[in-house]
Amino acid sequence: MVLFEPDRRRKVAPTLVDQTVTALENAIRDRRLRQGMALPSIRQFARNHGLSTFTVMAAYNRLVARGLLQSRPGAGFRVGRLKQAAPAAVPEWVAPRIGSSWLLADVFADHSISIKAGCGWLPPDWHEQASLPHALRQLSHVPISQMSAYGHPLGYRPLREHIAHHLLEHGFDVEPDQVLLTHGATQAMDIVVRTLLRPGDHVAVESPCYANLLQILALNRIVAHAVPRTTEGIDEETLDSLARAHPIRALFVTTVLQNPTGASFTMAGAFRLLQLAERHDFLVVEDDMSRDLLPGPAPMLASLAGASRVIYLSGFSKNVMPSIRVGYLACAKPLVDPCARTKMLLGLTSSEVMERAVHHLLRDGRHGTYLRGIRERLRQAHDEVAAAMHAHGFEAWTEPGAGMFLWARPPAPRPTGEAMIELATEALKAGIWLAPGSYFDPEGRDEGWLRFNVAYSGDPRLWHFFRQALSLPDPQPS
Amino acid sequence: MVLFEPDRRRKVAPTLVDQTVTALENAIRDRRLRQGMALPSIRQFARNHGLSTFTVMAAYNRLVARGLLQSRPGAGFRVGRLKQAAPAAVPEWVAPRIGSSWLLADVFADHSISIKAGCGWLPPDWHEQASLPHALRQLSHVPISQMSAYGHPLGYRPLREHIAHHLLEHGFDVEPDQVLLTHGATQAMDIVVRTLLRPGDHVAVESPCYANLLQILALNRIVAHAVPRTTEGIDEETLDSLARAHPIRALFVTTVLQNPTGASFTMAGAFRLLQLAERHDFLVVEDDMSRDLLPGPAPMLASLAGASRVIYLSGFSKNVMPSIRVGYLACAKPLVDPCARTKMLLGLTSSEVMERAVHHLLRDGRHGTYLRGIRERLRQAHDEVAAAMHAHGFEAWTEPGAGMFLWARPPAPRPTGEAMIELATEALKAGIWLAPGSYFDPEGRDEGWLRFNVAYSGDPRLWHFFRQALSLPDPQPS
Repeated sequence: MVLFEPDRRRKVAPTLVDQTVTALENAIRDRRLRQGMALPSIRQFARNHGLSTFTVMAAYNRLVARGLLQSRPGAGFRVGRLKQAAPAAVPEWVAPRIGSSWLLADVFADHSISIKAGCGWLPPDWHEQASLPHALRQLSHVPISQMSAYGHPLGYRPLREHIAHHLLEHGFDVEPDQVLLTHGATQAMDIVVRTLLRPGDHVAVESPCYANLLQILALNRIVAHAVPRTTEGIDEETLDSLARAHPIRALFVTTVLQNPTGASFTMAGAFRLLQLAERHDFLVVEDDMSRDLLPGPAPMLASLAGASRVIYLSGFSKNVMPSIRVGYLACAKPLVDPCARTKMLLGLTSSEVMERAVHHLLRDGRHGTYLRGIRERLRQAHDEVAAAMHAHGFEAWTEPGAGMFLWARPPAPRPTGEAMIELATEALKAGIWLAPGSYFDPEGRDEGWLRFNVAYSGDPRLWHFFRQALSLPDPQPS
Repeated sequence: MVLFEPDRRRKVAPTLVDQTVTALENAIRDRRLRQGMALPSIRQFARNHGLSTFTVMAAYNRLVARGLLQSRPGAGFRVGRLKQAAPAAVPEWVAPRIGSSWLLADVFADHSISIKAGCGWLPPDWHEQASLPHALRQLSHVPISQMSAYGHPLGYRPLREHIAHHLLEHGFDVEPDQVLLTHGATQAMDIVVRTLLRPGDHVAVESPCYANLLQILALNRIVAHAVPRTTEGIDEETLDSLARAHPIRALFVTTVLQNPTGASFTMAGAFRLLQLAERHDFLVVEDDMSRDLLPGPAPMLASLAGASRVIYLSGFSKNVMPSIRVGYLACAKPLVDPCARTKMLLGLTSSEVMERAVHHLLRDGRHGTYLRGIRERLRQAHDEVAAAMHAHGFEAWTEPGAGMFLWARPPAPRPTGEAMIELATEALKAGIWLAPGSYFDPEGRDEGWLRFNVAYSGDPRLWHFFRQALSLPDPQPS
């Protein structure tokens, strides 16, 4: 094999080593030398091209350093994996890392979908109409000099005071400086993961659980072990043996109106979970987005065990509105600074303008009335959707009667795996967004469950679609 | 060594393995068994406690899995590093990872600092006073139904159209769907790193460069190689040999009014850089925050080489105001989706309310006038600060005469390392925020440079402080 004719003029640039590197590089890029192919020995290559073995060795080594060649002791040199395509091409690891669950993100963008049965937010016309405009008008009177800078790393202090007071009312005793405002609760989750966990660390998650949590853990290369959610809490036996078998650093859990099942912990379930956390000495990260949608009281792990055991995450996308993009975490004092530093390096401060707007909204007299109205409306929607499910033979995993979500599956024989993806794709064509259960399963399993947003799932066209697509009989009048 | 008396009653829980695990665990936590101490062999331990070797082996293995014991082939078992302190304690890797450069974040929070010579933003009273209030009042008329939801994953479309139009005016041809709005430009940087790079990947950065970039790369375990910044561009020879020695995937660069040096690329410097990018086939990530502060034209790498080679980052914290927290990236079509997905999983959508506010602000007739005013004011501040520097014998690395930053150092013998940190600490006590150059150095080196924000550095108290702290002679009238 002769790849090129060396240019031997003295003082010519590039050097013979450079020329050899370039020739090999070109041959690899042109696929004359293909991935895995053995190269001639250094001696052989030198002889073929009339070069010194030193020149060839230097060239080979440079290409090894760049990953274009691989060297194995005793086995000579081979062409490495060619990973540098055109640089603007998507790197090969991007697609598999993200996977099909991102159908969820894609449908976010599609406003032609009218029946958002799989979405995670309330219909826009359910929101309080007057309070955000009012808050924005109030903000327009704040002098720019008070509102132009980055603001405090922890976020707008009056809002942190309001949150600390609210948490204290629930029995969770934190000071305003233990509250870190974030760009939504999802950023709070990412900050906790990136600050307190390292790649390779083991954590436990509920099965099923919040889809973005699984993505955040995967992106940070955390090893997530699944613990089945029960209607009263989580499966303690599984958690116990997990914690015996692995150095579990943290458990991520949603105590109230869990996404996606809608289930809430009982007080007994909460106690048993915290006992396990004590015994095995792991942190609990409590994601508590939906508490305000629950009409009655429910356990809050952070208030039971305190900030030395529980990191508390919440935000205002469920109880105010999603476009607010303000969330927070509350934690033990020694953890506040490291978390704030991670927040600052990931995106500097959060938006004080929006934090001031939330502060206005929460103190607006309309807010309490709005929450009561939303809870009542969701209760009615649960009744309506549960009736449609019974009539169509759907199995509900539990019937929370509150919050946004209902976790249910069609009667057997039900679609799973490929058939479920097909069903969701068919639904999209009919203007219906479904959220297959596998999106929320830490192991990607699919047992035919779907997450229903009750605010969107009373639509007769949804049930018409199911009857057609699954060949269900017409419903019996109840 | 006998650690415990096994309870041998049949059917008793816990099992003998459980009991052994607990006894060893307690001995390790009580420090009866200390870190690094050799354990008895399995056979020996079994004999001492009247247990079967199977029981002891199972117990040892479980503790190895949990990291409490370490097993080395042929060397038996040792007590591992006891890493589980009280869980709410700061994990031991947090502090070293963040390091002293986070003095920067700490001073963010301190409003008692009146002379912010080291900060990265304009004084609040320099901002346009009327346009944000006006934008907020306009927004208060938008019906909630149009503004309550999460919004499009790429961000508010009219703002993306505005940005695409603006970039086209600079010769960078992208469509609105190639623009991804983010929570400030720093989040855009994190998104690019997390989407397109993997831990262990090699990249090149300028020396010195934006401090948060270094933190983001470190947090994502990217190997950053330093390339010296020159007054015309970057040191091409270093970049060339770096790219020969390592598989450099990307170069992060600020073309115009660089943070911290204030330097801008010449057209020739930009061309030579892009030739190297072609030759070595790496991506260029162009961080272009301050272009609007430059009075004249300057090269934009993205417009010279296009989106197939350059990912473009910018935002509105320098040309509108920091509290806006809206940034963006513009890139090749195949990269938009993966980046949008990373954005969605890290914190869902960005704030449409703020994006609408920016859109109003940019179209406000006052914006152009404001920018012209700011540029003139910064030019005057540069003159004033440069004069103070000359009078005090300070060495300016370059004199950009525009933008916010001036990179300069005191006359020799100048403080470096510990002495520089001491100087910055003394300054804080005097109400002065200094930004030592080591914060911006990829290798943490300190050659006595400081980043000065000219908008804050004309203050006579700053120069009084320097005269006192560095024993400088009184300045000569010029």
